Amino acid sequence: MSTEEQGGTTVLRHEPDYQPPRSWRTWLIGRPLPTADAPHQTIGKLVGLAVFSSDALSSVAYAPQEMLFVLAAAGMAALTHAVPLSLVIVLLLVILTLSYEQTIHAYPGGGGAYIVARDNLGELPAQTAGASLLTDYILTVAVSVSSGVAQIVSAFPGLFPYRVELGVAFVLLVMTINLRGVRESGAIFAFPTYFFLGSMTVTVIVGLARHFGGSLGVVENPPTLEATGTVGTVGLFLLLRAFANGTTALTGVEAISNGIPAFREPKSRNAGLTLIWMSIILGTLLLGITFLATRIGAVPSEAETVISQLARTAYGGRGFLYLATITGTTVILIMAANTSFADFPRLSAILAVDGFVPRQLAYRGSRLVFSRGIGALAAIACLLIVIFRASVTALIPLYAIGVFLSFTLSQAGMAHRWWKIGHLASGQEVKERGSTLRYEPGWKLKMVINGFGSLVTLVVMLVFAITKFRDGAWVVVLLTPSLVYVFFRIHLHYQSLARRLSLEAYGAPPPVARHRVILPLSGVHRGTLEALRYARRLSDDVTAVHVSTDPSEAEKIQDKWELWGEGVRLVILDSPYRLLLEPLLAYIQEIADHRQPDETITIVVPQFVPKHWWNNLLHTRAANMLRLALLFKPGIVITDVPYQVE
Amino acid sequence: MSTEEQGGTTVLRHEPDYQPPRSWRTWLIGRPLPTADAPHQTIGKLVGLAVFSSDALSSVAYAPQEMLFVLAAAGMAALTHAVPLSLVIVLLLVILTLSYEQTIHAYPGGGGAYIVARDNLGELPAQTAGASLLTDYILTVAVSVSSGVAQIVSAFPGLFPYRVELGVAFVLLVMTINLRGVRESGAIFAFPTYFFLGSMTVTVIVGLARHFGGSLGVVENPPTLEATGTVGTVGLFLLLRAFANGTTALTGVEAISNGIPAFREPKSRNAGLTLIWMSIILGTLLLGITFLATRIGAVPSEAETVISQLARTAYGGRGFLYLATITGTTVILIMAANTSFADFPRLSAILAVDGFVPRQLAYRGSRLVFSRGIGALAAIACLLIVIFRASVTALIPLYAIGVFLSFTLSQAGMAHRWWKIGHLASGQEVKERGSTLRYEPGWKLKMVINGFGSLVTLVVMLVFAITKFRDGAWVVVLLTPSLVYVFFRIHLHYQSLARRLSLEAYGAPPPVARHRVILPLSGVHRGTLEALRYARRLSDDVTAVHVSTDPSEAEKIQDKWELWGEGVRLVILDSPYRLLLEPLLAYIQEIADHRQPDETITIVVPQFVPKHWWNNLLHTRAANMLRLALLFKPGIVITDVPYQVE
Repeated sequence: MSTEEQGGTTVLRHEPDYQPPRSWRTWLIGRPLPTADAPHQTIGKLVGLAVFSSDALSSVAYAPQEMLFVLAAAGMAALTHAVPLSLVIVLLLVILTLSYEQTIHAYPGGGGAYIVARDNLGELPAQTAGASLLTDYILTVAVSVSSGVAQIVSAFPGLFPYRVELGVAFVLLVMTINLRGVRESGAIFAFPTYFFLGSMTVTVIVGLARHFGGSLGVVENPPTLEATGTVGTVGLFLLLRAFANGTTALTGVEAISNGIPAFREPKSRNAGLTLIWMSIILGTLLLGITFLATRIGAVPSEAETVISQLARTAYGGRGFLYLATITGTTVILIMAANTSFADFPRLSAILAVDGFVPRQLAYRGSRLVFSRGIGALAAIACLLIVIFRASVTALIPLYAIGVFLSFTLSQAGMAHRWWKIGHLASGQEVKERGSTLRYEPGWKLKMVINGFGSLVTLVVMLVFAITKFRDGAWVVVLLTPSLVYVFFRIHLHYQSLARRLSLEAYGAPPPVARHRVILPLSGVHRGTLEALRYARRLSDDVTAVHVSTDPSEAEKIQDKWELWGEGVRLVILDSPYRLLLEPLLAYIQEIADHRQPDETITIVVPQFVPKHWWNNLLHTRAANMLRLALLFKPGIVITDVPYQVE
Repeated sequence: MSTEEQGGTTVLRHEPDYQPPRSWRTWLIGRPLPTADAPHQTIGKLVGLAVFSSDALSSVAYAPQEMLFVLAAAGMAALTHAVPLSLVIVLLLVILTLSYEQTIHAYPGGGGAYIVARDNLGELPAQTAGASLLTDYILTVAVSVSSGVAQIVSAFPGLFPYRVELGVAFVLLVMTINLRGVRESGAIFAFPTYFFLGSMTVTVIVGLARHFGGSLGVVENPPTLEATGTVGTVGLFLLLRAFANGTTALTGVEAISNGIPAFREPKSRNAGLTLIWMSIILGTLLLGITFLATRIGAVPSEAETVISQLARTAYGGRGFLYLATITGTTVILIMAANTSFADFPRLSAILAVDGFVPRQLAYRGSRLVFSRGIGALAAIACLLIVIFRASVTALIPLYAIGVFLSFTLSQAGMAHRWWKIGHLASGQEVKERGSTLRYEPGWKLKMVINGFGSLVTLVVMLVFAITKFRDGAWVVVLLTPSLVYVFFRIHLHYQSLARRLSLEAYGAPPPVARHRVILPLSGVHRGTLEALRYARRLSDDVTAVHVSTDPSEAEKIQDKWELWGEGVRLVILDSPYRLLLEPLLAYIQEIADHRQPDETITIVVPQFVPKHWWNNLLHTRAANMLRLALLFKPGIVITDVPYQVE
């Protein structure tokens, strides 16, 4: 223990040799890490790619198929439009990547779209971005786990009745691994991510090699085309919908910008390089898969996925490599949830520090991750899985709108940032909350690119919201503003609390002139007398109070008090309705109403402390109820004098 | 307010003009009744018969059929044994009635078998009787409601998937009506009971009239006899099993002896007369139904009840009177639950006063009934209905064993009581806990009758336990001793607590020599300063403690304390693992370990009191956690100084 004398106050620093005990928690998530370990709890580019890209990469498993689905409504010939559409999507990917790469360097503290919007567009757009992203991360967990469970259930139909339980179990598993810390969860989840990446890359390379070698045929026994809502001709709206469906491949591109602090130093550089690598892989796979799918005449179908058709055509059958590809795809779908577990807690911690969500979310748990955010994400995702019975079809319309809204806001924010930068003098520096602005030449082009990106993602979001409105997108359209409202209410609470607790303009409190002590008792015994002794030390003005539901009992207490009460005044409150708490509260209220401003009232409660927890069931716990009721009365101090019985 | 001066102590009696507010509870169960109303909350013989006999009377709906079922295994001819068997059952009924009638007068406080066993056989048999009866009352609710639901479901098969929900709803309905008080629930439930009684009596009278008039035929289109386990000859064991099944008609005979205090004065007389009336009705109906059933060639079957066969034969078809009989039977089956709701709370209140079950069960609610007992019964019965999916077949083997065990114990107790009475001198009076003994001539015969009754009911209980052991009776055979064990553990707890709290041999406590005050704080603000002011009033020895997870935060607090801490010592506890509670508890423990015997330690906790309940979600509530943790450390006083923010 070290002592410093500062002015008139003694300040002791005390480092307790407290070691967290080993418990089931240690076994489950590992021994607690000291705060000083934080710099070691970071990840490099290789693990970072696995943690933050599984969401984005998993989307190549369904985005091309979703695009083909829409086009197929205009007949098989319309499928050829898929390749040019993919090129446009890749162009959008390039714009988003450039934009977020700049965001990562400009805002090294993480927070992505939220911070960009906060510093450049204002609180309302910032909270909108925050709410959209948080909602979308929750949905990502629910959707990706549900789709993984759907794959498992189609392989083992006997598990169908347990799909909700399976989904919840998967969420809890991913949660537990994430509670072990980002380094460990990254290491655990890196293998399946790279397994998927490897198998998918091999499939595309083999496919392309055989195509250009001329040996790639068409799909054998393709599934039949479901002629749902055939439109015949390719119109603008059809192309727009196909494009929108294809852009679901871009969800997850923002993930790294939210999670920069998880990277090893130099954080921004590592995060930026990881983002670029992720985008290259994502774009290549997307183009490759779409190109090959149209070449082999793959048919979008509920019965067999396009990936499966592609893999068996490329490998010429359902051999080992085919199985590896399918397994990898199933695993990556569940793994997409992991990116949410990396980002949701980080983003909500930033919002917590800003005071828009409960402050507890900024608390780092024993493994230095934001464990309450991880827990909250798991809880809400499990709730969604239970409510929607783990149905992907029911959940998917809610999905992706939030991400595209955050894309739009983040691009718009960056565009505005370029505008601000363009109007600085060369060499001038302006510090904002999350970044520093310096003049850069070429700001005009960058502003136009970001502005264009913002416009395109806005259109995509609107297409999503409109086409899926009746299928469930209305939930998100209603939910996001409600969440923003709640965030602002929470912010108001913290602000007003801080103002009222502030010591500015706080004078010295008046001295306590009178101290009244009230001692409620249900009987006269050793516990009561301990409390009486304590009460008399507090003040000379002690009143014992007994609520009587039974006159003979009251008489007994009166007689005993005669003997043991040390002359202290006893008030007996008759309770004709056999209520214990209410007459006592009414009596205390009566006294509180008549007190002087400099008078303090203390209730001394003799509190029975049981030896075993189950003993509690054998007592009325009136003391606890009294505490709860009195806590809501201003200016009344409650003192529990425990009496343990060994 | 009236003041009496007694010795040196002022005693004030204070009748608060507190009127319980109207709320949803008022709407649900009626306005609270003052204790003084208790004498008016009693029932007469007519309502008493309805309340306490529905359990017993409902058994005529199934007991004859259960008896015929067993006999049918030896062929239709064996059914004729039913009438002599019924005569034996009625003889047993007479013995039980005489016995309980004497019990009612001997033990006017109620409690039946429990009190008789307690005063004559000892604690262990008494608790066994108590546990058996309480278990059986719970089972009665579950079985009778489930069988009522089964009847409804066979009429409306569409309701089958909702049978558990229906069962729970019925239990909650009966519970709510019982919470309104015995007078009201008696009045509400009297109608269906008398409706059943009327329709069944008419059926039997019409049947007998037509039989002796010679116009009663045999059942038309009787259900086919299910030849399950046909044995061919009538052996002793078969007769014994048939007899045992028939005796289920006797369950409920004990009900009135447990509920004497519910009756209007003269309680014992009214209760006794009600018991005699109930037994006359029960015996008559049982004999009448069995006699007629054998005469009309009724076939025991799952497809159609014997009552239904009897009614349609007596009335010559399925007319109005037939329907009335069937409806009455369905209703009485559910109504049997009501008797349990009248008895379970009363019996458990008696056990609570004796200290064998939680004392709270002796508390009278706003309508002067033991509302916690009513709630506990409903909760456990609902749990059983959920666990057993409202299946009568699964529940019935658990049933009736408890009642017969209590019959055996009560008869044995009464026999022993006669023995004691026989050995008194004439005119001598001995007061026991529940009754007064006086010499009576003729005690020998009464002792033999009770002894014989005890033996017979013991045999019946054993037959039940053995024949149904594998179907589920083992649960009861295990459960009853476990419950008795729990009851004794609870008793031990109350006894040892009373001993340790006793003021006998209690000297004056040593004066408090030193008072240390510890003030944990998470920040320096108005709330903290209020608590500091209070702490300084308690003692000069105040230590403020801050647990630091963030060095920059700790520095800020140190600086502020400099300014506002009034020179009070501040200890900063470094928490490398970011734990808040544990380092503080370790520090407090350290101080507690080194204190002198005459030293008191008080923890003054500044407690934030939110304006809205949801504000609580936005704060860590560390103060609450601290309280909970400290309550289990002996001798540490906890004081909450609230700071409300308006």
